[in-house]
Amino acid sequence: MRRVAIIGGGHTKFMFNSPQSGIEMLAEASMDAITKSNLKPKDIQAIYCGNVLGDFSEGQGMIQSYLADDIGCFNVPASRFEGACASATMAIRDAFMWVASGHYDIVLAGGTEKATAMGTSLATRTFAMFSDGRYEYPSGINFPGIFAMLAHLYSSKYNIPLKKLKETLALVSVQSHFYGMKNPHAQFQKEITVEQVLRGFTVSSPLQLLDCCPFSDGAAALVLASEDVAKKLTDKPIYFAGVGQASSGKMSAQYKYLPRLRAREVSVKQAYDMAGLEPKDIDVCELHDCFSIASLIAAESLGFADFGKAGELWEKGETKIGGKIPINISGGLKSKGHPIGATGASQVYDIVRQLRGDLVDEGRQVEGAKVGLVDTLGGDGVIVNLILKAD
Amino acid sequence: MRRVAIIGGGHTKFMFNSPQSGIEMLAEASMDAITKSNLKPKDIQAIYCGNVLGDFSEGQGMIQSYLADDIGCFNVPASRFEGACASATMAIRDAFMWVASGHYDIVLAGGTEKATAMGTSLATRTFAMFSDGRYEYPSGINFPGIFAMLAHLYSSKYNIPLKKLKETLALVSVQSHFYGMKNPHAQFQKEITVEQVLRGFTVSSPLQLLDCCPFSDGAAALVLASEDVAKKLTDKPIYFAGVGQASSGKMSAQYKYLPRLRAREVSVKQAYDMAGLEPKDIDVCELHDCFSIASLIAAESLGFADFGKAGELWEKGETKIGGKIPINISGGLKSKGHPIGATGASQVYDIVRQLRGDLVDEGRQVEGAKVGLVDTLGGDGVIVNLILKAD
Repeated sequence: MRRVAIIGGGHTKFMFNSPQSGIEMLAEASMDAITKSNLKPKDIQAIYCGNVLGDFSEGQGMIQSYLADDIGCFNVPASRFEGACASATMAIRDAFMWVASGHYDIVLAGGTEKATAMGTSLATRTFAMFSDGRYEYPSGINFPGIFAMLAHLYSSKYNIPLKKLKETLALVSVQSHFYGMKNPHAQFQKEITVEQVLRGFTVSSPLQLLDCCPFSDGAAALVLASEDVAKKLTDKPIYFAGVGQASSGKMSAQYKYLPRLRAREVSVKQAYDMAGLEPKDIDVCELHDCFSIASLIAAESLGFADFGKAGELWEKGETKIGGKIPINISGGLKSKGHPIGATGASQVYDIVRQLRGDLVDEGRQVEGAKVGLVDTLGGDGVIVNLILKAD
Repeated sequence: MRRVAIIGGGHTKFMFNSPQSGIEMLAEASMDAITKSNLKPKDIQAIYCGNVLGDFSEGQGMIQSYLADDIGCFNVPASRFEGACASATMAIRDAFMWVASGHYDIVLAGGTEKATAMGTSLATRTFAMFSDGRYEYPSGINFPGIFAMLAHLYSSKYNIPLKKLKETLALVSVQSHFYGMKNPHAQFQKEITVEQVLRGFTVSSPLQLLDCCPFSDGAAALVLASEDVAKKLTDKPIYFAGVGQASSGKMSAQYKYLPRLRAREVSVKQAYDMAGLEPKDIDVCELHDCFSIASLIAAESLGFADFGKAGELWEKGETKIGGKIPINISGGLKSKGHPIGATGASQVYDIVRQLRGDLVDEGRQVEGAKVGLVDTLGGDGVIVNLILKAD
């Protein structure tokens, strides 16, 4: 298979109540990605889109065809992927394969979501359909509930008193807001304190408001190209080094393994093995912090800390720029925002900019970063990991 | 790229009001496909699923993860594709690429839909969201309306009086029911007459009840394998010879080209070119007959008749077994049924059986069929074509 590079990206502002439709947001991000790649829409041979709630929130399914037509990519193959929050990462992994195989030379991949118009409460209930709809969601469990239970389990399994765990979790959110403040695309651009997190109202005990990411509206897109093409179009191609994906059943079926998610461990191993790399080789990581506890759980399965010990990374500042493993320097889902079907593309967009060294002006460049890891969790059932590498 | 074969398939009965869930139906079809391929679930390396209305009709998105877990394909990558009616064909084309590239050796692809529980009226309105949701569907246009307008345009553009066109269209439905009667998976297993079609109530003029396919519940699945693996597992591998996919914008944006669908002509050319074949080389075809007029429109763009002349194929019996190009010998969407996200997999399943020569006992074998064409239209925006070939 051929080497595949990301040669350009586009990213809308993430926000509450965007005046644009999901298709319009993705059109904006896509046109930015195409233009920054020194291409025109007619150069795009295929499109891969993530989107989850379009039919519910806007009465528009199958966004990919209309997107293709709107941006002038007439009659190209356009596919929509749905893997809950991991939809766009899934789409990007798939786009990678169509270029790696030699079938296409230049493709567009991204995602979009308009999740806020229905309000947080209805969005939470609606999105619960992307967990198990037979037993778990009908019994009243939604994603805040799932991650709250994982937090209790984490506390119990690793003998960390809940009060201590909550203080550690607060540090996760505080760091995310610190960097989100520097990211012009972020929904929340303000610093918060540990005290504010701990004084927030309880969403689902022990998780409080500032332990939870918001729903957001937004889109992000990337242009992928074969190595030969990439080298002609940019002097900073960022290559796929490894990809991984795995799934799991409903949360209750995973009880023997929780709070670890086996799918993540399976997926990231695929990516590491394909890249011939180990956790210590990763210079910067965007991981799926839908809730603060999710960051600890992810960091451990990705290999950055022993199980039960990830909190120390945040406590010691190892997840900041200059630390052992800078994590979510974009602000993460917590501060940057979480437009479900766009989130994976946004993570990839930020890692690409880190590896290109483009973030100096924003004051959040991980100096000398050459290898980045993307981690997206879709519902409780899908993990996609991508390892990207500068030459 | 490597040659890829379909080595086994599974197919539920298509019906109104199935007692099974979408996941359960796809589990049944998948286990049949895996068993008939002389494999076990643990041999499946990845899963590719089509599904459209699962969240609306069952409150269950992201079916693929739960399906994978339910059938014992633990932690494999599982992706959901949504391209309206073409979702499963899109998933299968994608699965093909992951095997052709050399990344996987054995994968499962299919689709499922539980579309009838909400009733035909609500399903029609819900499914209209998979047309353009900005201008067309809010103005009252749904799919019966779109195809009714195409019938008027066809009549006008090709100077075929509407009365004459309706009689020809009736022949399309009559033939579909003739063969559907022989297909044990079909939803409608009874013959109908031209008089019954013409006496039916009007759904959207000029289309009457028996010009329209039903919504259905059902699932179908296929196992794909690399050539080397396929030859060890079956003595009748059916190979992918060509694949194509294209998209288009909203129906009104296509006005200069209608009633021809440019996306279909772009897509099928990709498939023919890749296979090095022409329309005259196709021995049997399953095409997307969501409405009787859709069959004429498809047959022309696929190259089986001059534009405006496809009606003659049905009038002269050329679309029957023994004719020039046998079409929809499964009963088509009209008689076999149309479980939206499963339909493409069902079409592929039937073509595979034709090319294996497995349909003698059902009295609908196209003798000596070696090359088959699959055509699926998703909404008004996606076309996927697959050319399959026996050795």
